[in-house]
Amino acid sequence: MDLTVIKISGSEGSDIDAVCDDLAELNREGRPTVLVHGASAAATDLARRAGVPVRMITSPGGHSSRYTDPATLEMYVAAAAGLMNKEIVGRLQARGVQAVGLSGMDGRLLQAQRKRAIRAVENGRQRIIRDDYSGRLTGVNHELLLLLLTAGYVPVVAPLAIGAEAEPLNVDGDRAAAMIAAALQADVLVILANVPGLLADFPDESSLVGCVRLGEIERAMDLAQGRMKRKVLAAQEALSGGVGRVVLADARRTAPIRAGLAGQGTLFIP
Amino acid sequence: MDLTVIKISGSEGSDIDAVCDDLAELNREGRPTVLVHGASAAATDLARRAGVPVRMITSPGGHSSRYTDPATLEMYVAAAAGLMNKEIVGRLQARGVQAVGLSGMDGRLLQAQRKRAIRAVENGRQRIIRDDYSGRLTGVNHELLLLLLTAGYVPVVAPLAIGAEAEPLNVDGDRAAAMIAAALQADVLVILANVPGLLADFPDESSLVGCVRLGEIERAMDLAQGRMKRKVLAAQEALSGGVGRVVLADARRTAPIRAGLAGQGTLFIP
Repeated sequence: MDLTVIKISGSEGSDIDAVCDDLAELNREGRPTVLVHGASAAATDLARRAGVPVRMITSPGGHSSRYTDPATLEMYVAAAAGLMNKEIVGRLQARGVQAVGLSGMDGRLLQAQRKRAIRAVENGRQRIIRDDYSGRLTGVNHELLLLLLTAGYVPVVAPLAIGAEAEPLNVDGDRAAAMIAAALQADVLVILANVPGLLADFPDESSLVGCVRLGEIERAMDLAQGRMKRKVLAAQEALSGGVGRVVLADARRTAPIRAGLAGQGTLFIP
Repeated sequence: MDLTVIKISGSEGSDIDAVCDDLAELNREGRPTVLVHGASAAATDLARRAGVPVRMITSPGGHSSRYTDPATLEMYVAAAAGLMNKEIVGRLQARGVQAVGLSGMDGRLLQAQRKRAIRAVENGRQRIIRDDYSGRLTGVNHELLLLLLTAGYVPVVAPLAIGAEAEPLNVDGDRAAAMIAAALQADVLVILANVPGLLADFPDESSLVGCVRLGEIERAMDLAQGRMKRKVLAAQEALSGGVGRVVLADARRTAPIRAGLAGQGTLFIP
């Protein structure tokens, strides 16, 4: 199957309608697609409204992530599998796309191992966090996706995995998309974000890196700033898992998926 | 397919673990099932926490339902498709059941027509409400359910339908379960609630009505109080649609589904 996996961000500023227009066009052309979405802005917004504090954890390596204690997890489930997922499904259905929303809990689509002790850096000191419900991805039920794809549906996946005790876990959407793309041996993974691609000199958008080979990816990782580190890591995992190519492309333009497929953005190849 | 559709309430007091234990047992026996759940308590709780007022509408006929304005709809989507659906999927997965949660928006599973003008009675006076997002069910995508059932999955359905403009709509869970059971030509529909069944002399639990034939259902409707009216209506719709039998059974006991299948509760037959 000449399959495309698309990841859209859950941050403010992404033009979901442009993505949905473009996906509907690909759908009409008969190209099977899986859409994976983030949920960060919706989860933060819902938590704020419900009076749940929003806190971030910075790892010793400099990665920043949501501190997902049980109260935050509840908001994350409601926002990721509820609000954001059904918002996107509705917008795709409005364009005639037979979208089916799933979270990683459904049919054990995204399996993860809970991180029971997380090292965090706070005011320059390390501490261990034990009540966080985020996970490291360990497996994908690609058969469920194939069942739906073969029947003509477009799976829309929320970044919520299932843990060893069937608990919901917050997982990184970029890496979930990479693991799904690898499990399905996708032709291409398009990761859309609010930048033109990987920038050699962030935030100078004219310093776009056009192409990165798998062997050069460590150098690309050094260039990546903040959230972009996760996207480069996802590209590496997808390529190592057998995905044909990965494109980091700009979510802020019209026809963002097709622009990415045409090579606009940063192309990662084996 | 010797199929069972089960409806569990979204009210406080239902023992979800007993239902999940029982469903897991049926699953091990190889009996295909679809579970439809309510979301009222979770939606009310989330709305209260987020500061969204919870209001009810009473129809001229005496039916009471949630006033689903746009802000309430958002809370309803988050609670129904997010919190409640994934809570049940997690509890079933913890028991080894390959549950897949869906809302009626996914694959247009539950299609509805938005009620654009609702007559409500307030302080004895009628008024028309035009910003309500609840719907009258018009169709079911039973092929999506069959696809999942045939592959061994247990669909878990949230009572959220898709409207003509692909908007989410609040729909009654009992009637959604009835329409799903009819579309699948189910052998039996078990509707679980916090009562032993239909009571001739509500709330006297010793006045349980044992059996109602389709021809006697108008009389049963006269006996039904409050929420029970919807359940009797759902039983009527299911039987008229070709479902073998409907049981209104007690959710508060152990093995509630099997007790219902064994005829404990109120049995509705053609």
